[in-house]
Amino acid sequence: MANDVKKVVLAYSGGLDTSVILKWLQTTYGCEVVTFTADLGQGEELEPARRKAELLGIKPENIFIEDVREEFVSEYVFPMFRANALYEGLYLLGTSIARPLISKKQIEIARQVGADAVAHGATGKGNDQVRFELSYYALEPEIKVIAPWREWELTSRTRLLEFAETHQIPIAKDKRGEAPFSVDANLLHSSSEGKVLEDPNEEAPEYVYQRTISPEAAPDKATYITVTFEKGDAVAIDGVRLSPASLLTKLNELGKENGIGRLDLVENRFVGMKSRGVYETPGGTILLQAHRGIESITLDRGAAHLKDEIMPRYAELIYYGFWFSPEREMLQALIDKSQEFVTGSVRIKLYKGNVEVVGRESPYSLYNQDLVTFEEGAVAYDHRDAAGFIKLNALRLRTLASRHRKMG
Amino acid sequence: MANDVKKVVLAYSGGLDTSVILKWLQTTYGCEVVTFTADLGQGEELEPARRKAELLGIKPENIFIEDVREEFVSEYVFPMFRANALYEGLYLLGTSIARPLISKKQIEIARQVGADAVAHGATGKGNDQVRFELSYYALEPEIKVIAPWREWELTSRTRLLEFAETHQIPIAKDKRGEAPFSVDANLLHSSSEGKVLEDPNEEAPEYVYQRTISPEAAPDKATYITVTFEKGDAVAIDGVRLSPASLLTKLNELGKENGIGRLDLVENRFVGMKSRGVYETPGGTILLQAHRGIESITLDRGAAHLKDEIMPRYAELIYYGFWFSPEREMLQALIDKSQEFVTGSVRIKLYKGNVEVVGRESPYSLYNQDLVTFEEGAVAYDHRDAAGFIKLNALRLRTLASRHRKMG
Amino acid sequence: MANDVKKVVLAYSGGLDTSVILKWLQTTYGCEVVTFTADLGQGEELEPARRKAELLGIKPENIFIEDVREEFVSEYVFPMFRANALYEGLYLLGTSIARPLISKKQIEIARQVGADAVAHGATGKGNDQVRFELSYYALEPEIKVIAPWREWELTSRTRLLEFAETHQIPIAKDKRGEAPFSVDANLLHSSSEGKVLEDPNEEAPEYVYQRTISPEAAPDKATYITVTFEKGDAVAIDGVRLSPASLLTKLNELGKENGIGRLDLVENRFVGMKSRGVYETPGGTILLQAHRGIESITLDRGAAHLKDEIMPRYAELIYYGFWFSPEREMLQALIDKSQEFVTGSVRIKLYKGNVEVVGRESPYSLYNQDLVTFEEGAVAYDHRDAAGFIKLNALRLRTLASRHRKMG
Amino acid sequence: MANDVKKVVLAYSGGLDTSVILKWLQTTYGCEVVTFTADLGQGEELEPARRKAELLGIKPENIFIEDVREEFVSEYVFPMFRANALYEGLYLLGTSIARPLISKKQIEIARQVGADAVAHGATGKGNDQVRFELSYYALEPEIKVIAPWREWELTSRTRLLEFAETHQIPIAKDKRGEAPFSVDANLLHSSSEGKVLEDPNEEAPEYVYQRTISPEAAPDKATYITVTFEKGDAVAIDGVRLSPASLLTKLNELGKENGIGRLDLVENRFVGMKSRGVYETPGGTILLQAHRGIESITLDRGAAHLKDEIMPRYAELIYYGFWFSPEREMLQALIDKSQEFVTGSVRIKLYKGNVEVVGRESPYSLYNQDLVTFEEGAVAYDHRDAAGFIKLNALRLRTLASRHRKMG
Repeated sequence: MANDVKKVVLAYSGGLDTSVILKWLQTTYGCEVVTFTADLGQGEELEPARRKAELLGIKPENIFIEDVREEFVSEYVFPMFRANALYEGLYLLGTSIARPLISKKQIEIARQVGADAVAHGATGKGNDQVRFELSYYALEPEIKVIAPWREWELTSRTRLLEFAETHQIPIAKDKRGEAPFSVDANLLHSSSEGKVLEDPNEEAPEYVYQRTISPEAAPDKATYITVTFEKGDAVAIDGVRLSPASLLTKLNELGKENGIGRLDLVENRFVGMKSRGVYETPGGTILLQAHRGIESITLDRGAAHLKDEIMPRYAELIYYGFWFSPEREMLQALIDKSQEFVTGSVRIKLYKGNVEVVGRESPYSLYNQDLVTFEEGAVAYDHRDAAGFIKLNALRLRTLASRHRKMG
Repeated sequence: MANDVKKVVLAYSGGLDTSVILKWLQTTYGCEVVTFTADLGQGEELEPARRKAELLGIKPENIFIEDVREEFVSEYVFPMFRANALYEGLYLLGTSIARPLISKKQIEIARQVGADAVAHGATGKGNDQVRFELSYYALEPEIKVIAPWREWELTSRTRLLEFAETHQIPIAKDKRGEAPFSVDANLLHSSSEGKVLEDPNEEAPEYVYQRTISPEAAPDKATYITVTFEKGDAVAIDGVRLSPASLLTKLNELGKENGIGRLDLVENRFVGMKSRGVYETPGGTILLQAHRGIESITLDRGAAHLKDEIMPRYAELIYYGFWFSPEREMLQALIDKSQEFVTGSVRIKLYKGNVEVVGRESPYSLYNQDLVTFEEGAVAYDHRDAAGFIKLNALRLRTLASRHRKMG
Repeated sequence: MANDVKKVVLAYSGGLDTSVILKWLQTTYGCEVVTFTADLGQGEELEPARRKAELLGIKPENIFIEDVREEFVSEYVFPMFRANALYEGLYLLGTSIARPLISKKQIEIARQVGADAVAHGATGKGNDQVRFELSYYALEPEIKVIAPWREWELTSRTRLLEFAETHQIPIAKDKRGEAPFSVDANLLHSSSEGKVLEDPNEEAPEYVYQRTISPEAAPDKATYITVTFEKGDAVAIDGVRLSPASLLTKLNELGKENGIGRLDLVENRFVGMKSRGVYETPGGTILLQAHRGIESITLDRGAAHLKDEIMPRYAELIYYGFWFSPEREMLQALIDKSQEFVTGSVRIKLYKGNVEVVGRESPYSLYNQDLVTFEEGAVAYDHRDAAGFIKLNALRLRTLASRHRKMG
Repeated sequence: MANDVKKVVLAYSGGLDTSVILKWLQTTYGCEVVTFTADLGQGEELEPARRKAELLGIKPENIFIEDVREEFVSEYVFPMFRANALYEGLYLLGTSIARPLISKKQIEIARQVGADAVAHGATGKGNDQVRFELSYYALEPEIKVIAPWREWELTSRTRLLEFAETHQIPIAKDKRGEAPFSVDANLLHSSSEGKVLEDPNEEAPEYVYQRTISPEAAPDKATYITVTFEKGDAVAIDGVRLSPASLLTKLNELGKENGIGRLDLVENRFVGMKSRGVYETPGGTILLQAHRGIESITLDRGAAHLKDEIMPRYAELIYYGFWFSPEREMLQALIDKSQEFVTGSVRIKLYKGNVEVVGRESPYSLYNQDLVTFEEGAVAYDHRDAAGFIKLNALRLRTLASRHRKMG
C-alpha cells in the first residue's frame, strides 16, 4: 500500500505530532505532502505552521493556510445550535462539529492540487478518526485515507521523539515530556482528556482548564447581556451586530470571565468505550440558553416538542461523524424549517458559572398575555372548552378503566 | 347537574380558595363534602386544615389527612428521575408529578366512603385540571368530576371574597389583597406564576423565590457531597442512608443553601397557550445531575441513547397528565429495565447555583481505563479494527458520493 | 350565538344531509349561505349540486363549484405518499388527507365573499369534525365555525326527514330509509362505516365494497405494469406520462379490476374511541408498494430508516387533522429532502388482490451488484473490514458481558 | 493466531460448506472441533449431519444435535411478533431472528465442553456474520471467534471443491455446480439470494420459491381460520391449542397452500450495501396480520401508537444483530408490558396470497359499540365535548395564524 500514494493532503497543525506525521508520510509513502492548516479559532497563530512546513521541505504551493472561522460558525456551529444539540444530555459537541469542515477543506484542496490521498493526526481509539474519514469518503468516495496512528510503529512517546530527532523536526522544550492531558480547541470549545483525567472519580485539577476562569474566580457581580436572534441564529450582542465568528468570540469572552461553560463528563465514544473529558464551551453554553430562550416565545409547541424529540438523534449523528449524511441533512431540513420566526432578543444574566434567561421579546412572539390572564384576547379562550378537551382526552383511559374494573 | 351528586371528595388545602370551593360545593350541589389534605412536603402544617374543615361543617369522619411524602418520592419522583425527565429541555416537572398521587388518594377515599364525585381547585386555563381529571378518570371511569373554577360565577377576587364573607369563611389578612403571583409547592419544587411574572421580558423579582437563596447570597465556598444510588434511585448522602423523602429533603436543604435550582421559563401548556413560570427545584436539580453522573459510568451507550431519545415523550406525558396511561407505563418499563446496575456513588460540587459532577464510582462501572489507554485490558482493543469499522460505516456514504459524482 | 353570523361558507355535497344543513343554517342563523362543492374524485357529478343549491335559494354568485382533483393529488396525496404513510400500520388515510384541502378552499372563498363563518357536515363523534376545524382555525384564526351535527336537535333520521319535508328539500327515494352504512369517497379511496359494519367480529358483506371487485372476481391472469417516479412522485404508467389525478385514476382502475386495496380495520379515532371501517384504496395500495420499490434502490439506508421511524408520527398528524401544523410541515421538509433522487421505474405484478414489486431500475440506483458479488467494484469492499466493524460494534457488548461475568 | 485455539464449537449444518469449514478448522488451527447442529425447522433431517461429522473425525461426545424449534418460536419469534416487527416496512426478519439462538447454543456448548472458540459459516459480506458474532461477544466476551469465509483462501467454488476432494469430504452431485442462488431456512421463513436474483430489475423465477405455492396455483376458494391469542402470543388455531412451534408449523402449511408470504425485496444490509432477497414467510405473514387484528380491539391507542413508533428501531436492532443488547431488552420490556390484555380471537380469510382479517373478538375488547353509535353506553360520550376538544387543540394553531396574519 505504501507506494501507491502520489500526493497527500495532511491536516497539519504545525505541532510536533503532525510534523512527525508529515515526515513519516514523506519517508513511508515517498509521496508529495500538501499541508492544510486552518484557523478554527483554536487560538494559535498560523504563520509558524507555514514556516515549519517549509522547514520540513513542503513546497510553498503545497502549503495551504486558511482562516475558516466565519465558515465554521455560520455553516456548522450555528446550524447545530438551531437544534439545541447536546450529546448525552450535556456535551455541546465542540470537537465533533469542527471535523467535517476540516475534512471538506482537505478534499477541496485534494481536488485542486490533484492529490489522491488525505491524512489526519487522530488516534486509533478516538472518535475523530471516524469523523474525519466518514467525511472524506462522503465527499470523495475514491480518496485514499492515511491514518498514521493506526499504521505506524511510533506507538510510544519515546519512539516518536526519536523519529523527530532523526528527521530534524524541531521539538519545543515543553514537548519533551509527555503532556499531562491532550487538548483539542477551536472557536467553540476546548476539550481535555487523557492521563490526569483518566480516573473518573478524581476531580479534574484546575490547571486543566484553559478557556474559562473558575466560577470562584469570576466577578462577584452579575453581567447582563442581550442576545439578538434572526431566524434562529444569533446576530447581535447588546444591540451590536456581529459576524458569526465575532459574535461567538465575544460570547466566549463573556463566558470566560464569568466562569461559564465547564463540563466534566464521562461519555460513550462511537468506537465503543467510555472516556472522560473536560470541556469548556463558554460562548456555546450561553448561546444554547439564549437560543432556548428565544425559541420559548417564538416556537409553537408542536414544533418545539418535535425538535426536542429528534435532537438526541441529531446530536448522535454529529458526534459519530455523520455530518455529511442524508439523515443529518434531512434532520437539518426539519430543524431549519422551524426557525423562520425564531427572531427576537433574549436578556441573559451571567454570574459565576450560571447562565440564566431573565427576559425574552420578539415581534413574532406567540406568548399571549391575554390568553393567560382572564381578559379576552385576540384569540379567545373559553375555559368551558377545557371540560370537553379533558373529557375526550380521557375517553380512552376511561374505556381502559372500565375494562380493568369489569375484569376485576 | 347540580343535584345529582351525593358525596364529593375534595382536594382540600385549607386555604381560602379551597375553603370557598368546599362551601360552594355544599351550597351548589347540596352534597356531602369529604376533604382530603395531603402532606406532599409543601411546607405547611396540616392540622389547621383539619380545624378549618371542621369549622366549615365537615364531619370528622369525612376529614382525611395524610402524610404522603414517602410515597410521593418513592413512587412518583424517583421513577421519574430514573428517566432524567425534563419538559421542554429544562423543567423538572415538580407540579406535574404531584397531581396523579393526589388524584389517586381522592379516588381511594371516594371508594372508601362511597362518594360519587371528586373535586379539585385547579383553574380552567391551566394544566392541573387536566392532570387531576385524567387521573381520576383513568382510575375510576364513572366518577363525577367537579371543577368549580370552570363552573361557578366567582370569577373575580371581589366576588370570591364576598362569597367567603357571606358564608363565614375566615379570610386571613394577607389574603384580602390579591397575591402578586400564585404558588404551588411540594417536596420536589415550588412554582410561581401569574401577575408580576406575566411579562416574559421582565426579570422575576427576587421576592418571588421562596425555596432557594440566590446564587449571590450563597456561601463563597463550595460544598462537596456524595450521593449514592442503588438501581437508579438515590439512597444515601455522604454515606448516610436516608428514606426517599428524607433524602430529597436533605438535598433541598443543600440546594437551597447553595442557590441551586432556580428556573425562569416560558413553557407550552397542554391546553394550548404559553405561560411563564418560575420554578425552584433545589434538591431535584442536584439529583438530576447526580443521576446522570452515575448513569455515565454504569449505563451502556445503547441503553443511554435510547433513554435520551424517549425522554422528551415521557416528560411530555407527565406534563400533560398521562401518568396513569398505558404508554407512560410502557416507557416506565423500558426505563426501569435499564436501571438494574445504576448503582454507585457520585461526588458533587455545589457552588453558588452550580451543580458539578466531579467524580463517579461504581462496582458496576463500564468505564474501562484499559480501553482508553494503550495498555491491553480485559477486553482488548486493536486500533486496526477501527479501519474496518470506519470502512463499513462509510460504505453507504461512498456509494452515495459515487452517485453524486456520476450524476455531476 | 345564532344571530351573530352574517355569511357562512358551507362544504356542500348536494346530498340530503348537507341540504338539510344548508336550510338549517338559513333558518337558525338567519344568515346568507355560500356553498362550496368540490370534485375530489368522489365519482359524483357536480351540476346537480348547483341546481339543488339554487333550488334551496342560494344566489348564483354564492355557489362555488370546483374541480380540485389535480390539486388534491399533487399537493396532498403525493406529498403524503412520499412518506409511505400508514395510520396504525395499515390505513392509507384516504379520508384524512382530503379534509385540509376542502377546509382551505372554504377559507379562501370566505375571504373572497367576506364570510365570517364556515360550516361542515361532519358528525360529533368522528375525526372529520376535528380535521375540518383544525384546518379552518390554522388558516383563519378568527373564523366562526358551525358544526350543525353538534348543535342541532335533528338527532334522529326521522327528525331530519321531517325537517327536510317541512322545508321542501327534495328527498331521493333511496334516502327514505336509513343507509346500511355511511360512505366517504374521493379520488384516493372510499370508506364505509357504521350500522352493518359495527360488529367487528362480523365479516363485512360484499355489498359494502364499491370501489373494487373482490379478489375472487378478479381476472385469473396477472397484470403487469410499470410505474415511473420522479423525485418521489409517480409520473407515468407503462411509459405514458399522466397528470397526478389522471395517474391516480388509472391506478384506481387497475387496482379495482384486480381486486386490490380492500382493508377491514378497527382503528383508534382521535376523539378517543375505536371504530371499524372498511376502506378501498385501489390505486393508493399500488402506489405505496411502487414507491417503496423505487425507494428501495434509490434511498440510502440512513434516509430510509429515518423516514420509517418518523412515519407513524407523520401519519398520526394527518389522521388527527394537523395537516396545517408546523410539525407536519417540518416532517414534510425532512421527507421531501429525501426524495431528490427517488426517480426511476418499478415493475409491478397485480393479481387478485396482490401487489408485488418484481423489478426496479433507476439512473440513481444505489444498488451495486459489484458490492454484492465477489467482483471488485467502483467502490471496493474488503471483507476483512467486516472483522473490525464487528469488533468495534461488539466492544460495548463485551464490556457489559465482562461486568455480568464479574458480578456473576 | 492460527495456533492459539484449542477447541472450537462450529455451527454445523452437515452441508458441504460447513463440512469444508470443519476440515479447514482442523487443518488450519490444529484444534479440536465440536459441532452443533440445530433443528430450527429448516426442513432437513439432523442425523445425516451426525454421520457426516463422525465421518470427518468428530468424536461422538463432540457432536451436539438439538431440536430447538419450540425455544426458537417461544423465546425469539413470538416476542418479536409482539412488536409487529418489519424491517424496512416489509421484511419479517426470518433469518435475523434465528442467529441469536444458534449463537447462544454454541456459547452454552463452549462452556460445557471447555471450548475457547466458536465458528460460523457466514460470509464476509453479509449480515449474518455480524449477528453471530455480536451474539457471541455479548454472551461470552473473551470467546475467540473464527469466521473462515473472512480468513481462508477458498474464495472460489473451484478452490472449495478442490479442498473438499483433497480432504475426502463427500460432495453431493447437485453441489458440483454452483447453486443458482443461496438459501437460508428455518421454521419462520426461507430466504433466497444471490446469482439469478442479483439483478433487481429481473423478476424472481418461480423455481426460487420453496416454501409457498404461487397465488396462481392456490385454491380458488378462500380458507377461513381463527387464531387465538393470549397475552400477545398465538396459542390456538380453530380452537385447537398448539405448542408455539406446532402452531407456526400449522400456519406455514396454511400459508403455503394459499400462496401466502412471498416477498421480493431490495434491502439495506448492516454492512453497508444493498442486496436483493426473496423471502417466504407463510405462517409469519398470517401471524402478523392476526396479531395486528387482535391488538386492534385490545390495545389502547396510546399503547398502539407508541409501539408503532418504536417498531422500526426494534426491527433494525434485530436485523443488525443486537438481540442481546440492553436497548433491545428495554424495548422488549416496553412491548411486553403492552401485551397483558392482547387476548382473544381473530378470524382470518386466506385466499391466493391475501391475508385478510375479517373478525376479531376478545373478553378484553376496548371496542365499545355504544360509543360509536348514538346510544348512551357504560362510558358516555357527549358530542358537545368535541367542541371544547377541538377548540383547545386549535388554540396554538390559531395563535400561529394570528401571528402570520399580523406579520402579513
